[in-house]
Amino acid sequence: MTNFASRLHPGYDGAMAPTRILIVNPNTTVTMTETIAAAARAVASPGTEIVAVTSAMGPVSIEGYYDEAFAVPGLIQALLSAQDADAGIIACFDDTGLDAARSAAPFPVVGICEAALVTAGQLAKRIAVVTTLPRSVVPLQELVRRYGFAERVSVTACNVAVLDLEKPGTGAEEKLCAEIELALDKGAEAIVLGCAGMADLSAALSRKFGVPVIDGVAAAVKQAEALVGLKLTTSRRGAYALPGAKSYTGSLKEFAPKGV
Amino acid sequence: MTNFASRLHPGYDGAMAPTRILIVNPNTTVTMTETIAAAARAVASPGTEIVAVTSAMGPVSIEGYYDEAFAVPGLIQALLSAQDADAGIIACFDDTGLDAARSAAPFPVVGICEAALVTAGQLAKRIAVVTTLPRSVVPLQELVRRYGFAERVSVTACNVAVLDLEKPGTGAEEKLCAEIELALDKGAEAIVLGCAGMADLSAALSRKFGVPVIDGVAAAVKQAEALVGLKLTTSRRGAYALPGAKSYTGSLKEFAPKGV
Amino acid sequence: MTNFASRLHPGYDGAMAPTRILIVNPNTTVTMTETIAAAARAVASPGTEIVAVTSAMGPVSIEGYYDEAFAVPGLIQALLSAQDADAGIIACFDDTGLDAARSAAPFPVVGICEAALVTAGQLAKRIAVVTTLPRSVVPLQELVRRYGFAERVSVTACNVAVLDLEKPGTGAEEKLCAEIELALDKGAEAIVLGCAGMADLSAALSRKFGVPVIDGVAAAVKQAEALVGLKLTTSRRGAYALPGAKSYTGSLKEFAPKGV
Amino acid sequence: MTNFASRLHPGYDGAMAPTRILIVNPNTTVTMTETIAAAARAVASPGTEIVAVTSAMGPVSIEGYYDEAFAVPGLIQALLSAQDADAGIIACFDDTGLDAARSAAPFPVVGICEAALVTAGQLAKRIAVVTTLPRSVVPLQELVRRYGFAERVSVTACNVAVLDLEKPGTGAEEKLCAEIELALDKGAEAIVLGCAGMADLSAALSRKFGVPVIDGVAAAVKQAEALVGLKLTTSRRGAYALPGAKSYTGSLKEFAPKGV
Amino acid sequence: MTNFASRLHPGYDGAMAPTRILIVNPNTTVTMTETIAAAARAVASPGTEIVAVTSAMGPVSIEGYYDEAFAVPGLIQALLSAQDADAGIIACFDDTGLDAARSAAPFPVVGICEAALVTAGQLAKRIAVVTTLPRSVVPLQELVRRYGFAERVSVTACNVAVLDLEKPGTGAEEKLCAEIELALDKGAEAIVLGCAGMADLSAALSRKFGVPVIDGVAAAVKQAEALVGLKLTTSRRGAYALPGAKSYTGSLKEFAPKGV
Amino acid sequence: MTNFASRLHPGYDGAMAPTRILIVNPNTTVTMTETIAAAARAVASPGTEIVAVTSAMGPVSIEGYYDEAFAVPGLIQALLSAQDADAGIIACFDDTGLDAARSAAPFPVVGICEAALVTAGQLAKRIAVVTTLPRSVVPLQELVRRYGFAERVSVTACNVAVLDLEKPGTGAEEKLCAEIELALDKGAEAIVLGCAGMADLSAALSRKFGVPVIDGVAAAVKQAEALVGLKLTTSRRGAYALPGAKSYTGSLKEFAPKGV
Repeated sequence: MTNFASRLHPGYDGAMAPTRILIVNPNTTVTMTETIAAAARAVASPGTEIVAVTSAMGPVSIEGYYDEAFAVPGLIQALLSAQDADAGIIACFDDTGLDAARSAAPFPVVGICEAALVTAGQLAKRIAVVTTLPRSVVPLQELVRRYGFAERVSVTACNVAVLDLEKPGTGAEEKLCAEIELALDKGAEAIVLGCAGMADLSAALSRKFGVPVIDGVAAAVKQAEALVGLKLTTSRRGAYALPGAKSYTGSLKEFAPKGV
Repeated sequence: MTNFASRLHPGYDGAMAPTRILIVNPNTTVTMTETIAAAARAVASPGTEIVAVTSAMGPVSIEGYYDEAFAVPGLIQALLSAQDADAGIIACFDDTGLDAARSAAPFPVVGICEAALVTAGQLAKRIAVVTTLPRSVVPLQELVRRYGFAERVSVTACNVAVLDLEKPGTGAEEKLCAEIELALDKGAEAIVLGCAGMADLSAALSRKFGVPVIDGVAAAVKQAEALVGLKLTTSRRGAYALPGAKSYTGSLKEFAPKGV
Repeated sequence: MTNFASRLHPGYDGAMAPTRILIVNPNTTVTMTETIAAAARAVASPGTEIVAVTSAMGPVSIEGYYDEAFAVPGLIQALLSAQDADAGIIACFDDTGLDAARSAAPFPVVGICEAALVTAGQLAKRIAVVTTLPRSVVPLQELVRRYGFAERVSVTACNVAVLDLEKPGTGAEEKLCAEIELALDKGAEAIVLGCAGMADLSAALSRKFGVPVIDGVAAAVKQAEALVGLKLTTSRRGAYALPGAKSYTGSLKEFAPKGV
Repeated sequence: MTNFASRLHPGYDGAMAPTRILIVNPNTTVTMTETIAAAARAVASPGTEIVAVTSAMGPVSIEGYYDEAFAVPGLIQALLSAQDADAGIIACFDDTGLDAARSAAPFPVVGICEAALVTAGQLAKRIAVVTTLPRSVVPLQELVRRYGFAERVSVTACNVAVLDLEKPGTGAEEKLCAEIELALDKGAEAIVLGCAGMADLSAALSRKFGVPVIDGVAAAVKQAEALVGLKLTTSRRGAYALPGAKSYTGSLKEFAPKGV
Repeated sequence: MTNFASRLHPGYDGAMAPTRILIVNPNTTVTMTETIAAAARAVASPGTEIVAVTSAMGPVSIEGYYDEAFAVPGLIQALLSAQDADAGIIACFDDTGLDAARSAAPFPVVGICEAALVTAGQLAKRIAVVTTLPRSVVPLQELVRRYGFAERVSVTACNVAVLDLEKPGTGAEEKLCAEIELALDKGAEAIVLGCAGMADLSAALSRKFGVPVIDGVAAAVKQAEALVGLKLTTSRRGAYALPGAKSYTGSLKEFAPKGV
Repeated sequence: MTNFASRLHPGYDGAMAPTRILIVNPNTTVTMTETIAAAARAVASPGTEIVAVTSAMGPVSIEGYYDEAFAVPGLIQALLSAQDADAGIIACFDDTGLDAARSAAPFPVVGICEAALVTAGQLAKRIAVVTTLPRSVVPLQELVRRYGFAERVSVTACNVAVLDLEKPGTGAEEKLCAEIELALDKGAEAIVLGCAGMADLSAALSRKFGVPVIDGVAAAVKQAEALVGLKLTTSRRGAYALPGAKSYTGSLKEFAPKGV
């Protein structure tokens, strides 16, 4: 069971209840969770408490449809383990399991791709998402279309495996910069970093290229704060209605919805 | 391990290798698998062997995003258990896990929603999908859009729970008929039954309403036969590239891709 | 010249620089500015200072294309009068002059329609915007399409003039409620209030209808805080490039861009 | 009058009624009909009888809108000459006259472009159609859009006249291969051959490029078998309602619909 | 061979060469051609000469895809018979054969549906096309989409057969008015009459309903005059490239393109 | 107050009332108004009187969103100053203020971008708009989308400032030609000149490139003549309803609508 302990921002004066944001890294790589947590804390408001958890089961990195599917159970488990959170964030740029999470979580859930796009969309007309591997381009294009950005957003890959982002000497940052340059030449006005593992690079790249470079993790923290600040949560009508009580069998038994 | 035993169509003369089609019911309700298998066998060609399997873990019925997410591991497990199949079918109208399945299976994989739509699209211009519960309407509209049918297809729900389709006395069929009538009044020229559990009703409804009424399970059998007959399988470039070797942890460890 | 005086939220401890958000009411009705300012302050974070200003020229309310066009000069004048703001908000649901404002303001600018839609889009799949007069429906549908929400958002009017929202005895709230009810019946999962003059109604309507009811002013405050917190501002490449130095003539002379 | 004589597949055991598929080559070049018939028979199921007929009037090849228009009467004449067929196929990649044919034929009618796209769409996300002459690119893009594939399919021309596909020494196949290579470089995951005259090349090109290369004629045979196997035919409501009785004058008099 | 004799508008002073517009009624009903010619002459500029011809072969009225296909040869024959025309108009609201005609005619060709839509689009945002029979709704929706009006235009049928428009006592005008009323109630701001046979009704209906009611024949005359006045004709690059020399066989032999 | 004096075309015989077309150059550069007026008169019909006026306030050229916003008041002032016009034209390719103008003017109003696109669309399938500066590309793409041409039209910039079009020695025409050439290479079949300041170049460029090169000013004159000839004006239902009586304050007071 995850707990929101006293990890509050130093600027928080204790007069109001803190906002507790749970960030789930849906892959199982703990060092990536740390990168994500640091990026989140760097932008969190005073009064926002960030708890970052790593999924306990599934792939070590999420690259393409197959990994995505197997990241969902661990992600949901982690999200539902912190019922006292005020908002949840799914820290994978595929927004893995976002619709399922919204249906089930007792708090609003933010996806880092959606958060990055709506942020970028308020700063620029033409946006480029630069992701890791070519196999992720189509899944992200499908997300982009679902979020309504198909006419404004291009998606390309810099051909770096997710976990290589963390390894020195793989030339990852150079490849990323080359791809950003190409996107700007083709008319992009802002860049969105298409992988949670790039969360630590946005500030430096913004300075380097002189355009907004948006990291989804940071963007999602602000969207989560926004929803909590507005006292709004997921609609329970229609598509995100809470799952009714139902039996689940086999090793996923524990996930059976209890109903309302 | 699933086996293709001698369940061949009586019309098959044994001269050619049979086409082995594996149908996975991604929910865990065995009676529904039986309905599905019967519908599949009713349209299978001589020389096509149908093996229908029930997922070993997850929800007893799939209604909305949450159930969908937890149906995928059991579905993939069942699909990959029959490596000697010539084609696979996912028998849930949400086409649950279809992209993940295509990435991993050594044979082409057909979704019953996609199969039903491409079939209906060759028979009529305006199509209505009638599904079970309202919460499934938006997920199906998203599928319809992804498959390119947004301008031609409407989706409505007859407000019947999936498992009530099997129970006498719930008025399920009456509600379904009322919804079909409404759709025809609004201009639908063909009807697609939006749930695998309706697979046994299509012939009677076609006759009753005098328009094509398409069941996705039957349609998928023919699409699977088509792909096998054309000796075509899933592309390995881009979005459906085989997952590379990678560690998975926790209770989903067994699903880790071994790589090529 | 507008000033950010010490109108800070009581929860603000003074340790950090406050976030100064300038809200411009682009119509000239001061009482509406007060409604807007109150709605903004109700959701502002500790440390956020809200300054609300009323446009000094143009229409007393903005209803349709014609009013919209004449609201822009006053709006830009007000926005540019507070160069020390950290972010600006345009408090008219038509997002009047938003692109021009973004091109010229030295800080990020948020539109209340765009802010409301991106907020609602993280809480629900199907959204209804309820606005005032029928003549505003098409302009808002065009905005909705530009922001990428055409497939998810319907726009209807409750047939209440903007300034009647402030007058008791016009039945305005009843008409609004009737229109919301209709939208929910047709499948809306969340409601967006399509006029800044409705800013005070969202909390009560959320409770009454049991779905998220989003006010654009409140949503915009949180989006503005988000952009400031992320240290991001409008891209200067392409469509939002700062206007180059150029002569303007006649009574609009003062608006001539000085160039970079 | 065309007849379904005993041209049955050797694997057919005679126990069931054969499926009679009529393929019409809507241009008047007999050698192309032979290529088409061979491609069709190569994939036909045991029990499927293929009858391929050549249009008796109109253009020797169909390249662009003008030829297309004049291919329709001969095509309809040929289709309607075989009332005992179980399904019809129009073997021109423009799906010339498909809607008219569906309105009039007493059996389901399949277009090779539509059949190729729905087949490819179940094997890959991004698809390239490679056709003959540049003048056909826009007509095919219009078809692709109508079938709902605009977001997934690109269309290019290899600049080979249709009839040159049959002539040795024109470098046709080299030009086709060069265009395929280009499409794959730009992200295509599967190739669709955009002319019935390329029907004999798909297997070799699949092997050469290691991706699915789909020939519309073969794909259409399987779609036709699918529709027949499902006992479904064209809807008679709405757009494909049978033409009512009506006078036609002049040399097209014979085509006057007799009504129902 | 059609001739442009001295049928000039009385206001024409003879100082300049007249503009010769050839209107082809692609059905074979001469009385309808007369209605069309009168509507055309009523709006033609001084200096514009209208020649209206009736197709010599094909259907007596065009209702749906089948009739449409058989109207094309007669239409093309009539269009090409007057090589000295300055512009051509196809006077059937399906814009039957428009792309083929543009490819072949030595002058610009205008379709009455396209002309009506571009005219209406400059007068109103939301437009309703009211056509004759339900079977024409989908073909017209496809045209509307191709012309880029899908988001602005609805299409409905008043359930009147084309030739009944000419017959007293069929209640045709009452049914048309009822359908227009319905469209206005649903938000239409302008009406387009969806059949050339309604050409004589637009002025009276405009007055009756107090909104622009656009007849395609009249609109097309002005578009044709516009193109001639601008000295512009169909592009010969790409889709509308002149057909190259090619053999045609059978009874359509005479239509074989001679090439450039 | 603008007057329609006796500036009639020499070909006009005085027998009918002339058509008075008011062209407003919404920037304040008089020499550009002269270019525009000349281009308009060159294509005006006998009987059409062209009055071209220059806006009295705002930017000297319109390049991007900011200039656009400040061009509207002067434009509306000029348009409304000639109440006896039969039609109005806004001679800036951004169609600046078109919707506001249509709402308020007592005659139909034509935008040169919309006019150019609907003209080009009747001559070619694929169209390229070549405009001046890169910052105008996105605004024009948004217009193109709103007019329904997104699938057929590309927009590029030749990187020439608007006022440099008038200056010898800036290489403006060479840059424009180079951009046109590029567009033709990429498949454009017709060219639209994306700036009113290019109005004098269309005839020469049509000849040079052998494709239709459309100038919006000329196209708009013919569309305006068409609407006047059809006796049609802007719908007063819905989006273009006349503004009701309302107070405006400050220096824009004079623009307050008087109501109907």
